[in-house]
Amino acid sequence: MNSIAPSAGAFVNRQWRLAARPKGLPVVTDWEFRTEAVPEPADGQFLVRVLYISLDPAMRGWMNDARSYVPPVGIGEVMRAGGVGRVAASRHADFTAGDNVSGTFGVQDYALSDGRGVIQVAAAAAPLTQYLSVLGMPGMTAYFGLLDIGRPVAGETVVVSAAAGAVGQIVGQIAKIKGCRVVGLAGGEEKCRFIVDELGFDAAIDYKNEDVRSALREHCPDRVDVYFDNVGGEILDTVLTRLARHARIVICGSISQYNNEGPARGPANYMALLVDRARMEGFLVFDFASRYPEAAGEMAGWIAEGRLKSVEDVVSGMERFPDALLKLYRGENFGKLILSVADEAS
Amino acid sequence: MNSIAPSAGAFVNRQWRLAARPKGLPVVTDWEFRTEAVPEPADGQFLVRVLYISLDPAMRGWMNDARSYVPPVGIGEVMRAGGVGRVAASRHADFTAGDNVSGTFGVQDYALSDGRGVIQVAAAAAPLTQYLSVLGMPGMTAYFGLLDIGRPVAGETVVVSAAAGAVGQIVGQIAKIKGCRVVGLAGGEEKCRFIVDELGFDAAIDYKNEDVRSALREHCPDRVDVYFDNVGGEILDTVLTRLARHARIVICGSISQYNNEGPARGPANYMALLVDRARMEGFLVFDFASRYPEAAGEMAGWIAEGRLKSVEDVVSGMERFPDALLKLYRGENFGKLILSVADEAS
Repeated sequence: MNSIAPSAGAFVNRQWRLAARPKGLPVVTDWEFRTEAVPEPADGQFLVRVLYISLDPAMRGWMNDARSYVPPVGIGEVMRAGGVGRVAASRHADFTAGDNVSGTFGVQDYALSDGRGVIQVAAAAAPLTQYLSVLGMPGMTAYFGLLDIGRPVAGETVVVSAAAGAVGQIVGQIAKIKGCRVVGLAGGEEKCRFIVDELGFDAAIDYKNEDVRSALREHCPDRVDVYFDNVGGEILDTVLTRLARHARIVICGSISQYNNEGPARGPANYMALLVDRARMEGFLVFDFASRYPEAAGEMAGWIAEGRLKSVEDVVSGMERFPDALLKLYRGENFGKLILSVADEAS
Repeated sequence: MNSIAPSAGAFVNRQWRLAARPKGLPVVTDWEFRTEAVPEPADGQFLVRVLYISLDPAMRGWMNDARSYVPPVGIGEVMRAGGVGRVAASRHADFTAGDNVSGTFGVQDYALSDGRGVIQVAAAAAPLTQYLSVLGMPGMTAYFGLLDIGRPVAGETVVVSAAAGAVGQIVGQIAKIKGCRVVGLAGGEEKCRFIVDELGFDAAIDYKNEDVRSALREHCPDRVDVYFDNVGGEILDTVLTRLARHARIVICGSISQYNNEGPARGPANYMALLVDRARMEGFLVFDFASRYPEAAGEMAGWIAEGRLKSVEDVVSGMERFPDALLKLYRGENFGKLILSVADEAS
C-alpha cells in the first residue's frame, strides 16, 4: 500500500465529457471540455496519470443511445476511451505509484480505478504506445479475428480493408506470417505503397482511386478465402462478388457506416454466402480476454524476430481530442491513432 | 436392357421452354409452350414419363443470366425443374421400364436421361410426391441446413421463415424433435394455425398482420439462437435485432427479393453479428449429397413414428405451370408445391 502523493489534489484534470448525441459526424460541441480537481483515491483505489489515449472507430458507436455490446456513454459522462498511464498514487494492494498500466481510463488526464480491467504493462519490454496498438486491443482484435474467426490456411487469399489502420496493418502481417496471399484495401497511394513496401503485403488496392471490383479480379485470381472487414458499405458488397467457395468474412467493424444518419447500408450481395457456401461472422475481442497473454506473447516474438511491425500515428494535446478522433473517419490516420496527453518521461 | 416401347414416339411431349429473361415477376410469355414428339432413348439412355414436377423458389434465379451455383437456363431450353417420373423405356443397364425415379427432368412430359443425378424411388415406401418433399430436396435442405449449419441445441429457440412452405415446415418439425422452442413466421391466419396446431410449433407469427418485432419479443423471450431464413428482406433485418449471443443464421433463400428489379435489399442490421458474436452462413444442399441416405433414413423413421408430417400442395395440369409457379412468390402455397402432369396410376 502506498501513500497518496500529497500534491495530487493540486493538479488539474482536463476532461472531455459527452454533451450531446451526434447526428452523423460528431462536431466539437458534442463534447464539453472541463477542468476539474484531480480526485483522490479511496481505500482500494489508485489514481492513474493518463499518458496516451486510444482513438478508435468504435467510439462513435458508444456515443449513440442504442443497444450494443457495451452501454452507451451517458450525457455528462467522461467520454469512454482506452489508454495507457502511470499510477500516480495508490491505496490498492496490487498497484504501486510508478507502475505503467493499461485500461479504460476515459478522455481525461487522471482516472480513479479499483483495478478492474486494468493490466500492468512493462515500459522496458516495448514502447508504451505499442500497448494501445499491436500489444493492445487492435493487436488482440487482429489476432483472434483473423486466426479464430477467419481461420486462414497457408496458400489462401486474405483480403483486409482499412489495411493501413490499427487493426488492418496487423491482420495483413499475421496473414503473411501464416503463408497467405495478402491484399489490402487502403485509401490513397501513400498508404498503398506503405502496406506493400513496408509491411510486405502482396498487393494493395487504392479504393479511392481504383475500381475495386476489377482490382480484386486482378489481385485475387483464386478469389477471396478470408475477408477481414473493417469498413462495411460498398467495399463489403464488392468483395462479396469475389468470394471463393467456403469463404469466411470476419465482421470487425463498419467504419464507412458509423456516421450515417439513416440506417446502415446492408450488404445487398449477401446471397453470395449461399452461392459460395460462405460464412460471415462477427466477434468481440473481449470474449478472448483469457487468451490475451498467449496472443501478446506470440506477437512480441514476431516483433523481436522483425516479422511484425507496429505503426502508430500519435497526435499530441488533450485539447485536440475531437479533431484527432475525426481523422479516423476521414481515413487520415496511418496506423494506430493515439492521442498523447502527457510527457511519459516527466 | 429393355426394349423400347414401340409406341413411345407416338406420344406428345409438352414442354415449357424459356423464351425471355424476366424482369421482376415472371409472366407467361417468359416461356414458350411447345409440343414435340417424344424422343427415343439411345444406347445407354432411358426415357422418363414425368409424373410430378417440383416448383421451387430457386427457379426464379435460374431464369437470370447471372453467376450462381448452377448455370442459368438458356433461352430456348426446357425450363429446369426437379421431378418424379416413371421409366417408360430403357436402353440403360441400371434402369428398367416401370422404375420410379427422381431427377432433374425439366418442365416437360418426357425426359431422356443417361442416369446421372437420377435416383430410384420406391412407391411402396412412401407416396411419390414425398420424394419431392420431405424425402427430396426440401427435406434434405431442411435437415442439413438446420442440423449442420444451424446446429441447434435442445432448449434453444429456433425461428424459421416461410414456415408453412416446403422447407420451413420440415425445419420446424425437426427443431421440435431436437428439443428446441420453435417459432414460425408465415403469412395469414390459416397457415399460422396450421403450423401450431398440426405441426406442433410453439408459436406462429403472422408477418402479414402482426408487428414482427414485437411478436418476436413476445414469443422469443430468450432471444433467437438459430434463424433459418428462407425470405430475406425486412424479416431478416428484424430478426437480426433479436439475436441471442452466438446465434446462427442459416441462409437458405431470400424469396422476398427474387423478383426485385433493382438490387436486393441487404440486411442493414448485419452489425448485430458483431454485437451478438453471431454467424450468418449459406449452404447448398448438393454439397451434402453423399449423406442424403442418412437423412432420408432418419426422416422416414420420424414419419413412421408419427413425429414428422409432410404436406404437399399439388396443382394439376402441365398447362398451368406458369401460374402455379407464381403461387410461390405470392405466398399462396401450403406446404411443398408440386405440379402433377400425369396420372401415376395410368
